[in-house]
Amino acid sequence: MQILNEILEKIKKYETIIIHGHQRPDGDCYGAQFGLKDVLKTSFPNKNVYVVGETSEYVSFIGTPDTIDDKLYEGALSIVVDTATESRISDKRYSLGSEVIKIDHHIPVDQYGDLIWVDTTFPSCAQMIAYFYKTFENELKMTEVGARAMYTGIVTDTGRFRYRGVSKLTHEIAGLLIEKGADVVEIDNKLSKESIGVFRFKAELLNNAIFDEGFVYGIIKAENVEKYNISMEDAAATVNLFGGIEGYNVWFVAVEYPNEIRLRIRSSGLEIDKLANLFEGGGHKMASGARLNSFDELDKFVSEMRAYIKRYQ
Amino acid sequence: MQILNEILEKIKKYETIIIHGHQRPDGDCYGAQFGLKDVLKTSFPNKNVYVVGETSEYVSFIGTPDTIDDKLYEGALSIVVDTATESRISDKRYSLGSEVIKIDHHIPVDQYGDLIWVDTTFPSCAQMIAYFYKTFENELKMTEVGARAMYTGIVTDTGRFRYRGVSKLTHEIAGLLIEKGADVVEIDNKLSKESIGVFRFKAELLNNAIFDEGFVYGIIKAENVEKYNISMEDAAATVNLFGGIEGYNVWFVAVEYPNEIRLRIRSSGLEIDKLANLFEGGGHKMASGARLNSFDELDKFVSEMRAYIKRYQ
Repeated sequence: MQILNEILEKIKKYETIIIHGHQRPDGDCYGAQFGLKDVLKTSFPNKNVYVVGETSEYVSFIGTPDTIDDKLYEGALSIVVDTATESRISDKRYSLGSEVIKIDHHIPVDQYGDLIWVDTTFPSCAQMIAYFYKTFENELKMTEVGARAMYTGIVTDTGRFRYRGVSKLTHEIAGLLIEKGADVVEIDNKLSKESIGVFRFKAELLNNAIFDEGFVYGIIKAENVEKYNISMEDAAATVNLFGGIEGYNVWFVAVEYPNEIRLRIRSSGLEIDKLANLFEGGGHKMASGARLNSFDELDKFVSEMRAYIKRYQ
Repeated sequence: MQILNEILEKIKKYETIIIHGHQRPDGDCYGAQFGLKDVLKTSFPNKNVYVVGETSEYVSFIGTPDTIDDKLYEGALSIVVDTATESRISDKRYSLGSEVIKIDHHIPVDQYGDLIWVDTTFPSCAQMIAYFYKTFENELKMTEVGARAMYTGIVTDTGRFRYRGVSKLTHEIAGLLIEKGADVVEIDNKLSKESIGVFRFKAELLNNAIFDEGFVYGIIKAENVEKYNISMEDAAATVNLFGGIEGYNVWFVAVEYPNEIRLRIRSSGLEIDKLANLFEGGGHKMASGARLNSFDELDKFVSEMRAYIKRYQ
């Protein structure tokens, strides 16, 4: 692709390259950032290459962002990965550089940047960086540090090769990264670690699952999140634990936030976005969000859910 | 490899080919059996190709074994996949055929068969069948039925591409099977389904997890297995749910059987096979089994575990 050539030419032109990601970075954001840093640093040892932005405890084994002075942006190239929305770029100084490149696999919200490579057929941004490497395999290099980063990005954004978008190319790239030193068992052990608090929180939540007419749900009280000392991200992510039960093709968690209850609704059959629309929410057909003012409104939501499932199933 | 040529020549020679697997077949056994059947039936439409042996509810979406008459074995070729031990071959009639081929990825116990292809570097037997196809890609064919079967075999025997043995070749083969029609989301949905009984059994078990000094465990009583109407396989497989908790690098479940308690012990650090040896057990360094006469002996085992961890960690 022509855009890949243009990106490589830009990279060659600059002495300093600063790689940004999005706020609250996840495994794929880190994977793309540190994967790209490794490829550039290894291929062009004389360039100064930095990763900036927020840290992520969950994937800290991939790398640690650099703390850099504003001055380094003078005459530098900024590359922003995995970020669809300009306001969500972590570390606003990206615009201080001479030019900006955007590399992303999300449906674009803001098309910022002097060069833009957006391809939503890639199930992870890390796969894009590895594909960039593969395209110029004769010119570029990587070490096992970059291979581990990108393999982790692919694994986390595809739910371990399970989601729509995983393709022949995804597996080919994964194989390439293993060849370059990614250790699947080491990476899985790192990603599978959880605190005793998260474990016990989940166990209690699942044990209190409420089975209704064709749907199942969990109630997450703020006091429990506090009691087990877990993050709101960990708490909200538990919605996935209720999926796949025979006869219960819709599931949700109701999470208590300071001034509202946020619902995360999922489905493996019936489209549930229209129901979410009735409760100040929406999203995708099989994965939507909604909100209630308090748990007092939960009965009403559950009644609507029952009626909705009866009507449309 | 020469052996692959020999296998293909044998297959060409026979009009009737009957494919066997092991008792209590799992996803990989089914994947190899039905994958091979599809490749042979599609490549050689005039041959009679059958899969025989026990059924598996869990992976029934892959295919249904054929019920065949003894007479069909006359002058037939038997191919046995995924079975290291001769006595564990499902449907003993395999020996009624003219010749037997063994294809397996386990450490061999019995080297039965006129032609033997055993390769323990393959993390699944389904990958071997797909590799056989790939080797003769110009001559052989497959449909999406075979692709789905073999992809399922790879996914189930590698824990979704997580286990040791997953290689560049594993991913290349997985990519090939997607190209041939395997739908990763459909397969994952099928594999992720569980009964409400299994869900509630697991939830209760996790909620009653016992955290000790550096290890965690669950107690599985026969009455609970009965109460939730689950299989002993499902019950024993729950040991994996206790892995990955920070600070608890050894974990086990104690499962009540009619006349004994079977222990499934796992570790992500300390080698635990020597401990298992003390309780009529053993196995691998990170995954061993052991047994107690009754739950009365559990205290003793737990004490030994504490001492063992203190000594060796």
